[in-house]
Amino acid sequence: MAYAREKGLYIIGDVKRGDIGSTAAAYSAAYLGRVTVGGAELAPFDFDAVTVNPYLGSDGLRPFLEDCRAYDKAVFVLVKTSNPSSREIQDLPVGEEKLYEAVGRLLAELSEGTVGKCGYSCLGAVAGATYPQELRQLRRKLPTTFFLVPGYGAQGGRAEDVAGAFDSRGGGAIVNASRSILLAWKKTGRDGLDYQEAARKAALAMREDLRRILPR
Amino acid sequence: MAYAREKGLYIIGDVKRGDIGSTAAAYSAAYLGRVTVGGAELAPFDFDAVTVNPYLGSDGLRPFLEDCRAYDKAVFVLVKTSNPSSREIQDLPVGEEKLYEAVGRLLAELSEGTVGKCGYSCLGAVAGATYPQELRQLRRKLPTTFFLVPGYGAQGGRAEDVAGAFDSRGGGAIVNASRSILLAWKKTGRDGLDYQEAARKAALAMREDLRRILPR
Repeated sequence: MAYAREKGLYIIGDVKRGDIGSTAAAYSAAYLGRVTVGGAELAPFDFDAVTVNPYLGSDGLRPFLEDCRAYDKAVFVLVKTSNPSSREIQDLPVGEEKLYEAVGRLLAELSEGTVGKCGYSCLGAVAGATYPQELRQLRRKLPTTFFLVPGYGAQGGRAEDVAGAFDSRGGGAIVNASRSILLAWKKTGRDGLDYQEAARKAALAMREDLRRILPR
Repeated sequence: MAYAREKGLYIIGDVKRGDIGSTAAAYSAAYLGRVTVGGAELAPFDFDAVTVNPYLGSDGLRPFLEDCRAYDKAVFVLVKTSNPSSREIQDLPVGEEKLYEAVGRLLAELSEGTVGKCGYSCLGAVAGATYPQELRQLRRKLPTTFFLVPGYGAQGGRAEDVAGAFDSRGGGAIVNASRSILLAWKKTGRDGLDYQEAARKAALAMREDLRRILPR
């Protein structure tokens, strides 16, 4: 993290926390905010953003939202995750819609009044590259929500699959890849000696791949 | 944890993890199982049990279940949590039932073939003391599921509220209290000098309170 910070990178803690209010407040203080230890005010993690799980409802989300506003951070709520079994719970029918859509609505309600100059709320959504139709539909329903899109690369998501996450300005989404970049060296047959080079190539290839599908 | 272990206590890590399969497997190895570091096999946490979040579906639960069976551990899946806003998502109507009941059914399906000699599965459920009716109903529907019942004490749950969590043998549930015991010294006015004594008294009072409502 120190190195990433030095390089000016945006750091997302994929902590996927979801807890009762008092505990959520403590996690949020540690990850995004400040804690007081022996009279000194510290920012133990100082992430730029974290991910949170919506299962406990707004109690578990509000402390993060408050710290986002206080410290200019962001939080991404799991809405439609990239894994194969995400259908089991997230796609359960709730009235006319699916559970993940109901979670999207809760998110939109909590986001009211939080849209910044950039046009997006600091309360974002996680929606996986592996479910392109759902991603596109969420983009339509949540026009001021910024998306964190996992599942590109090792999990099978392609550039075409994430196209629907972006808005007409080509903004509103960050597509992340982990294993396809971190473990690119495994495919070179050089036993990690070219770790940096392999990671750089994979990152550049991903950038070019995504540029193809963005509006000009 | 070292002290608790020395005293023969059962240690539950309330980690509330919920992630994609590969990440869940790594968390589970660290919390319940073994990891190999520099050729040495280590059990970094060695919890007796952990809590997990069901939002990602079975992908996020199976690695924990496998380690439970391999290392004689337990895992408690969040079903109906104790916090005030748990209704917002967990009580959403899914067909004829509520979401938490559907999660309970997924749990029962995953538990098949895991019931041990004790009569319970190593895949348990979290159900809060603050929702006594839901707790009683889950007990009826999940006869071989062990319950972890938070919300007693500081969150407002009383002995009468947790009575429905136990089966006819008076087993099948563990009721936990955190703040009402850990912070009992705050009510003594002695500024923490009697921390141990206050915690002991609160724990004993809780035991007596729970004994009242158990079948003889």
